[in-house]
Amino acid sequence: MKKKVSLKDIAKKVGVSTATVSYVLSKGKESGVSAEVSEKVKKAAKELKYQPNQIAKSLKMGKTFTIGLIVADISNPFFAHIARIIEDEATRLNYTVIFGSSDEKSDKSWDLIQFLTNRQVDGFIIAPTENSEKQIKYLKEQHIPFVLIDRYFPEISSNYVVIDNFKAAYKAVNRLIETGNQQIGIVAYSNSLYHMRERVRGYKSAMGDNTLEVKNEWLHEIDFSDIKLGVKKAIDELLLEKKPVEAIFFATNTLAVHGLKYIDELNLKVGEDLAIVSFDEGEAFDFYYCPLSYIKQPLSELAENAVAILTKQISDHEAKEEQVCLEAELVIRESCQRSNS
Amino acid sequence: MKKKVSLKDIAKKVGVSTATVSYVLSKGKESGVSAEVSEKVKKAAKELKYQPNQIAKSLKMGKTFTIGLIVADISNPFFAHIARIIEDEATRLNYTVIFGSSDEKSDKSWDLIQFLTNRQVDGFIIAPTENSEKQIKYLKEQHIPFVLIDRYFPEISSNYVVIDNFKAAYKAVNRLIETGNQQIGIVAYSNSLYHMRERVRGYKSAMGDNTLEVKNEWLHEIDFSDIKLGVKKAIDELLLEKKPVEAIFFATNTLAVHGLKYIDELNLKVGEDLAIVSFDEGEAFDFYYCPLSYIKQPLSELAENAVAILTKQISDHEAKEEQVCLEAELVIRESCQRSNS
Repeated sequence: MKKKVSLKDIAKKVGVSTATVSYVLSKGKESGVSAEVSEKVKKAAKELKYQPNQIAKSLKMGKTFTIGLIVADISNPFFAHIARIIEDEATRLNYTVIFGSSDEKSDKSWDLIQFLTNRQVDGFIIAPTENSEKQIKYLKEQHIPFVLIDRYFPEISSNYVVIDNFKAAYKAVNRLIETGNQQIGIVAYSNSLYHMRERVRGYKSAMGDNTLEVKNEWLHEIDFSDIKLGVKKAIDELLLEKKPVEAIFFATNTLAVHGLKYIDELNLKVGEDLAIVSFDEGEAFDFYYCPLSYIKQPLSELAENAVAILTKQISDHEAKEEQVCLEAELVIRESCQRSNS
Repeated sequence: MKKKVSLKDIAKKVGVSTATVSYVLSKGKESGVSAEVSEKVKKAAKELKYQPNQIAKSLKMGKTFTIGLIVADISNPFFAHIARIIEDEATRLNYTVIFGSSDEKSDKSWDLIQFLTNRQVDGFIIAPTENSEKQIKYLKEQHIPFVLIDRYFPEISSNYVVIDNFKAAYKAVNRLIETGNQQIGIVAYSNSLYHMRERVRGYKSAMGDNTLEVKNEWLHEIDFSDIKLGVKKAIDELLLEKKPVEAIFFATNTLAVHGLKYIDELNLKVGEDLAIVSFDEGEAFDFYYCPLSYIKQPLSELAENAVAILTKQISDHEAKEEQVCLEAELVIRESCQRSNS
């Protein structure tokens, strides 16, 4: 394990000044130093395994080789997995990743953007919060490279990598209908983010295309700030009224986990009394008594595309914006039917 | 949303040179600039909400206000949760966090340490891999501040924040014995890391103190590189031999998740045919049919202590080393007994 090699060490080895070494290593052919000496310096640097001081190099190149990653919560498995793949891709391209969690709050998101811009990250990968359109416009005005992931704003032209949320939700609800369910509820978040609106639209569309009426009391939109209580209230209204629904589509896996815990407390059996489809899998479902049907998002492709687009934009600020919309897969298992029908 | 304020903007507002502004903001009282002008500059900076360029400031202060966090895998829930709390604490103290995943490989860990040292992180929080003692010694020799978290090397004097693994494992196995089990197996990792050795020691000690013999075939140490197969083999030997064990202690929750999935395939019932205690909880257990008994680690305290010790060391390189050893709690639920006994 060697001590960190400095320009001075190289200079000593070759028998030249530190300034000469610095010129050769930073300016290359334009250093003004003779080819013979340049070669000796580069050879010595290689032998000693010299690694340039990244900070100084950053100032020179105008790049820090750092990406700022802003997600709702790094401890949420969906984002933790995406973060891991982003880390692997970024490392491959010599970038480090600084992360921050917005908790779905636009003021926290803005603090993070400023904080990380100050650290001169070369660009951002962001899962934007509700009401953060101005922040995205700011990044555009400042020509700071960024890619939106998981959600985007249709009215703002930007790089983004998302899945087709409408199609995924449509497939899920259509499956519930195919297996004999007609009274179907949906539990989603109440925010205005496009991906959530598209999941609700997919639900409504699948119902409509199967000439099924959507009753108002079947559509439940939960506040992110109090998920447990919101889900409980939604389940009460969906299942404990005079005409309970036959199936529920949960628009995220966090909503599904809360929902299923409460359904268990009510002693209702999924796959028998009630059918379920959820968005996203989750470790929590590994041991659920009724194998859950869920929409599987292509996390690797989402993350890899995001890093590729961002690093391209960082290298070429004039690069054309890229929009990637991937398909999610519906994993069909026992929970999407009811045996007691 | 304002455009980023520069020194030039402040200079223009006050009617002085950019150099004057720079001196006032970076050197304070020792700037050589008159008190009256200094006040005007500071007032203008505040009004315009000026935020210094962190990179330039870093070079000046010799600090980047960045922490390097190296864990086994950022997508592992244990580490994702710790990362989140570290992020929150670091942000409170004006630090950003760059993360990297070692996958429990010492060569990857070394690459990350070099990579992040090059980015001049002010210090590290590291969950060290097996065989990375030389890397830790290197950080010490280079006077690079660091704190070890979750595991440490007893033969190397360093900052660390860990739990009392021996005591936690002892409590868990003792509980299994108290509920009437005598033939108890353990499934751990085969690495030499101290925390894992201590968990095995706690198991052996609890058995010994209850005058119970530990048979060789009850001690299973799995290779991290092939957990699924290793756990399957262990369970086969523990449960499908002539004399199956009555209880199993899983030394990590990853081992428990694999173990329980396979036990389900064998149609054995936890809490009836077999008792179980696991290290750490996991979302995976939320819906397990038999509420799992497990050792609950104080994640918040681990993470908060780590950040506090590291930032103290960063501010004062001569600060005394700190070693924190916290207690974990045994959460007792139905899985630690057998009804068919």
